Amino acid sequence: MAGRTEWIAVDWGTSNLRAWGIDAGGSITFAASSDKGMGRLEPSAFPAALTEVLTGHVERDGDPLDVLISGMAGARQGWREAPYLETPANLARLAAASVRPEIKGSRLSPRILPGICQREPGAEDVMRGEETQLLGVSALIKGFSGIVVMPGTHSKWVELDGRMVRRFATAMTGEIFEVLGTHSVLRHSVSGADDDGDRNEGFESGLNAGLARPEMLVSELFRIRPRALLSGVDPAWCSGFLSGLLIGAEIGGLRRWTSGGEIPLVGGKKLCSLYARGFAKLGISTRMVDATDATLAGLKAAREL
Amino acid sequence: MAGRTEWIAVDWGTSNLRAWGIDAGGSITFAASSDKGMGRLEPSAFPAALTEVLTGHVERDGDPLDVLISGMAGARQGWREAPYLETPANLARLAAASVRPEIKGSRLSPRILPGICQREPGAEDVMRGEETQLLGVSALIKGFSGIVVMPGTHSKWVELDGRMVRRFATAMTGEIFEVLGTHSVLRHSVSGADDDGDRNEGFESGLNAGLARPEMLVSELFRIRPRALLSGVDPAWCSGFLSGLLIGAEIGGLRRWTSGGEIPLVGGKKLCSLYARGFAKLGISTRMVDATDATLAGLKAAREL
Repeated sequence: MAGRTEWIAVDWGTSNLRAWGIDAGGSITFAASSDKGMGRLEPSAFPAALTEVLTGHVERDGDPLDVLISGMAGARQGWREAPYLETPANLARLAAASVRPEIKGSRLSPRILPGICQREPGAEDVMRGEETQLLGVSALIKGFSGIVVMPGTHSKWVELDGRMVRRFATAMTGEIFEVLGTHSVLRHSVSGADDDGDRNEGFESGLNAGLARPEMLVSELFRIRPRALLSGVDPAWCSGFLSGLLIGAEIGGLRRWTSGGEIPLVGGKKLCSLYARGFAKLGISTRMVDATDATLAGLKAAREL
Repeated sequence: MAGRTEWIAVDWGTSNLRAWGIDAGGSITFAASSDKGMGRLEPSAFPAALTEVLTGHVERDGDPLDVLISGMAGARQGWREAPYLETPANLARLAAASVRPEIKGSRLSPRILPGICQREPGAEDVMRGEETQLLGVSALIKGFSGIVVMPGTHSKWVELDGRMVRRFATAMTGEIFEVLGTHSVLRHSVSGADDDGDRNEGFESGLNAGLARPEMLVSELFRIRPRALLSGVDPAWCSGFLSGLLIGAEIGGLRRWTSGGEIPLVGGKKLCSLYARGFAKLGISTRMVDATDATLAGLKAAREL
């Protein structure tokens, strides 16, 4: 049974704000969320958004309360910029590198953790939020060294060695799926998709094509349209194919990063299971790490280090 | 000097309608166009659109006038469907396979040329309009046998042997450029691009990356954003990089189609010159064929065969 709230863990993304109360033993005392993500807020609106989401969960008055925040709140266009750590980056330094915006007259004492950037010419990249999940992975899987894959709108591939982030890459797979399915000629083939059986068949076919020929992506993508016209495959099949093709091309293109070891997949269960199918075809085993579990484990570890 | 209009050549695409009067010697007697492309017309509106664009150029009354049409007017959602020829397709059969919609009470006697489809499972593809340009290429470059590349919104790569289309593939390069630059996170990096010098540098860098690693496209694409954030490259550079990366990945992925021979590039001058730079990096020479020249040569050849 959870005790008194000792500190607050916050994941402040572009679209959402999520907060958890944590007691002295590390148990969750409450969970709260709102849609006041960084994308909707002016810098001056962050204090009120944080206060609002905590209303009813913590007393207005009392001793100073530590609030540890990861994610886009620390972006340049966020609450207060938390300058990036650079690769190779030691995740044990996250809390030490945090910034401390003040909320006047409040007991809330926020700290925003930094993201990580990679400045190597031709391999420039950035992350905000994932670094905290990676620290969580290092806490949840003791002694892990290898590749971590974080499927999503912008998938991250990360070479993690204990708490050191050696290098990483981002694939905009999820966003390409969304944008092509909504705004390109392919929208005619994928709209109204609703049959899960056909979707699964299409996914399998696309996954095989993407893994086998990631270099042919721009031509394999178009093929969805004539296939729908000529072979009569339905929108669910096409939507599955588009998803499988993009995920297959991501994994096929970045496979040189893998070295045979088990890959932690950090993200939502459904999406991670699609990636697991792709890796399985290369003979690579995976294990799922729930994204929220990783975030919470990372915030706890950051506070203790 | 051009003589009396003997017949009318028409290129009826999705966005535009273009018509040319041709005399007995093959010279152009007039050129006319309108924005009444297939995409804006119900089937019943085609006769009026054609009549309207010819007003002032041909007499209302007189002997029947042959109107040879290529392009999307023959699509299922066009004026009258002109069923596809199948690969391997003999372009000498285009006119014989045309359909003849009627315009009641008019001297105009339209024929719509068919497109070509490829039914091979996993390599399904379609074209409408390009087949006429390919017949034009075979007339303009006597005895040509090899690969023809037709850069555009949907680029076509075609194995052409005299008048036989052996096989073809489509890369949606132009549309991906448009859609990602307008609707994805990359729009923040490419919008307001106006410096041609930086665009050229970015194009060169993207072209090299795409040619070298076409299989890495989904991750190379994202990199534009952090590069803009970290290295301060401007929107013109990013827009050039996006264009170069996509064209490079198209050429790099499909390079196995090439066999060292000179490649005719059919399209607009500016876009074709960008593709020529890509092929030159692989040691492959190219020659430009203006898209309108190819269309007109194709319509003339189709009428004579």
